[in-house]
Amino acid sequence: MSLIVQKFGGSSVANAERVMNVARIVTDTFSKGNDVVVVVSAQGDTTDDLIEKANEINPSASRREKDMLLAAGEQISISLLAMAIEKLGFHAVSLLGWQAGFETTSSHTTARIKRVEASRIKKELDKKNIVIVAGFQGISKYGDITTLGRGGSDTSAVAIAAAMHADLCQIYTDVEGVYTADPRKVPNAKKLDEISYDEMLELATLGAQVLNNRSVEMAKKYNIELEVLSSMAKASGTIVKEKTKMEKMLISGVAKDEDVARISVTGVPNVPGFAFKMFSKLSAKDINIDIILQSIGHDGKKDITFTVAKARGAEAVEVLKKYASDIGANEVLYDDKIAKISIVGAGMESHAGVATKMFEALYDAQINIQMISTSEIKVSVLIDQKDADKAVSAIHEKFFD
Amino acid sequence: MSLIVQKFGGSSVANAERVMNVARIVTDTFSKGNDVVVVVSAQGDTTDDLIEKANEINPSASRREKDMLLAAGEQISISLLAMAIEKLGFHAVSLLGWQAGFETTSSHTTARIKRVEASRIKKELDKKNIVIVAGFQGISKYGDITTLGRGGSDTSAVAIAAAMHADLCQIYTDVEGVYTADPRKVPNAKKLDEISYDEMLELATLGAQVLNNRSVEMAKKYNIELEVLSSMAKASGTIVKEKTKMEKMLISGVAKDEDVARISVTGVPNVPGFAFKMFSKLSAKDINIDIILQSIGHDGKKDITFTVAKARGAEAVEVLKKYASDIGANEVLYDDKIAKISIVGAGMESHAGVATKMFEALYDAQINIQMISTSEIKVSVLIDQKDADKAVSAIHEKFFD
Repeated sequence: MSLIVQKFGGSSVANAERVMNVARIVTDTFSKGNDVVVVVSAQGDTTDDLIEKANEINPSASRREKDMLLAAGEQISISLLAMAIEKLGFHAVSLLGWQAGFETTSSHTTARIKRVEASRIKKELDKKNIVIVAGFQGISKYGDITTLGRGGSDTSAVAIAAAMHADLCQIYTDVEGVYTADPRKVPNAKKLDEISYDEMLELATLGAQVLNNRSVEMAKKYNIELEVLSSMAKASGTIVKEKTKMEKMLISGVAKDEDVARISVTGVPNVPGFAFKMFSKLSAKDINIDIILQSIGHDGKKDITFTVAKARGAEAVEVLKKYASDIGANEVLYDDKIAKISIVGAGMESHAGVATKMFEALYDAQINIQMISTSEIKVSVLIDQKDADKAVSAIHEKFFD
Repeated sequence: MSLIVQKFGGSSVANAERVMNVARIVTDTFSKGNDVVVVVSAQGDTTDDLIEKANEINPSASRREKDMLLAAGEQISISLLAMAIEKLGFHAVSLLGWQAGFETTSSHTTARIKRVEASRIKKELDKKNIVIVAGFQGISKYGDITTLGRGGSDTSAVAIAAAMHADLCQIYTDVEGVYTADPRKVPNAKKLDEISYDEMLELATLGAQVLNNRSVEMAKKYNIELEVLSSMAKASGTIVKEKTKMEKMLISGVAKDEDVARISVTGVPNVPGFAFKMFSKLSAKDINIDIILQSIGHDGKKDITFTVAKARGAEAVEVLKKYASDIGANEVLYDDKIAKISIVGAGMESHAGVATKMFEALYDAQINIQMISTSEIKVSVLIDQKDADKAVSAIHEKFFD
């Protein structure tokens, strides 16, 4: 007998029919002799609807009250799923975050899980109940409801799997697994049978929205085997684990990230300390910097170019212009019509020429590279946004066809 | 400085505009130097919407899961009200039933409050927060979410007022107070300034849906002064308390109850024990009996007629027919086209002829009386349903015009 944690996202429980579908998946797993803990997100658009209700009244409401409001979403979905499981003749019990023992930090709307005190879950499993847990939410040491922020339900699922030493944590979603590229854009994209935690982390960072990064990090830390699969298709998905057997494969995927803007600060004095000053102004505002490119200085001046998330672009430019004289800036240029294309693969650590092959694909497609960034298992390039899909296809073809 | 508990029903918080209106009432009270605890029901149709969602999936879901689902309704309304109060520049904190210390029995969907452990509420009041509590819900000793059943939020408000020795408990609703008759039906109906607990209890039982009976019983037990008033009109309402000064007034109201069905069992042997057998069969099914009329026996037989709530009528008839031979029944007759009209007033204890005056009003209006029932402060008659409104008007005119 195994303990399996299954997580279902909002689209998987969006209406009565889909809730029944999830109930069937869950009870099938239970009927095979497994203990099952299910983690559920709020139904479809519930969270958006609740946010709209709040904005109508007070867009700048306190984060404590936002958490109180949003946590109602999973309360609805867990009880409906429990009812659906009862309908199929099985025993189910739904638990809110605090009932399931999710102790979090008290930073409302972006709380982090400190501990899962799983005694109630264990007690219910001992009674042969299927346990349904509200994802995304927990409780602070002050006894207040907290939420975990974006992708929080994935993290909830992995945290339970870790706390209870589950044998497998299945993340059900609306895609059939992790693909070598976005299958809606690249018809030849292949589903991967396996991928390593590190590769998955890079892919998630780079715009492949299959799994939330915090959940993969936690899975890696506690060595929890994840499976990403579809709640609609009856097919096995992609296993995420420490070591994969896919030694032959150079790369595991091509990802596109269009949520990126480029900022160039020109005419920065070519003496130590100015880059530090510039980036410290941005980090003080909690603005994360991604790829950084520094030109070779001439005439005692240099240009520094970097990327930020699009949403923070305007703010970053404002900060830099405000401190223009402090940081010795001449001009601050901004461009958000760009895209970051990345290849990820543990294979490239031991294989030379992977980056070259990527650049060759882009050259063949006549796509200009603006910036380049590399790590052990990743190569990213910045290109014009209009070329993004063409670039992904060209690179995917070069490596996989 | 006083401690005031204010309760707002679902229609008072049905949309953003009304939530803001409630926030203004609450903050006005707070600004006058009072400590304020607010109890809120779920918004407008939320509860019905949630029940519909449940019924789509599993109409016979467990009561535990129904409670889990429904409790989400108040979670939404309390956080929205807190946000509205924040918008007006005040500090508010919303608390779920379990956070506010509502310890209940574990009979899901019809739980009763055992205790309000109000330390969290006190702590928040000490911090000069306006405290907003989810009505209708609590927690069982097993740590499960419970709900209090119909009118539960009124009871929640009175329970807090009792636990905290509040100076006043205001029940805001969509009517301006307690009237001598339904003002939508009887244009001359008058708003009462005061009414006693007992009169209010009789009126509530008899179909005047202003206050839930359990809440009035609890207010009486702990001697909590209630005020029933409108969240829309800026006017004082009706005070409900132990002794009223309205000695002159014979009756305080005329009420109509159409949710009643009459059952007659004919040909019951006129020997002891048969009535007991009959009613014990019904009480075993939790079917409450209201007015009972027993004919004078002749030929060793008698007829027993009584009323039940319409919703239980069919079941009651079924039970009686099943045990027809046991209870010596000849025939079981059923009629749900009837109405119960009642007058209520503490004054009738000391004034003779009140019932006579009521019967005279009905006689003048040519309305036939089918059954009569009286108590110290109440006279009820059963009449044809089609005459109900005419009867209320006629009686009201006789006593109040």
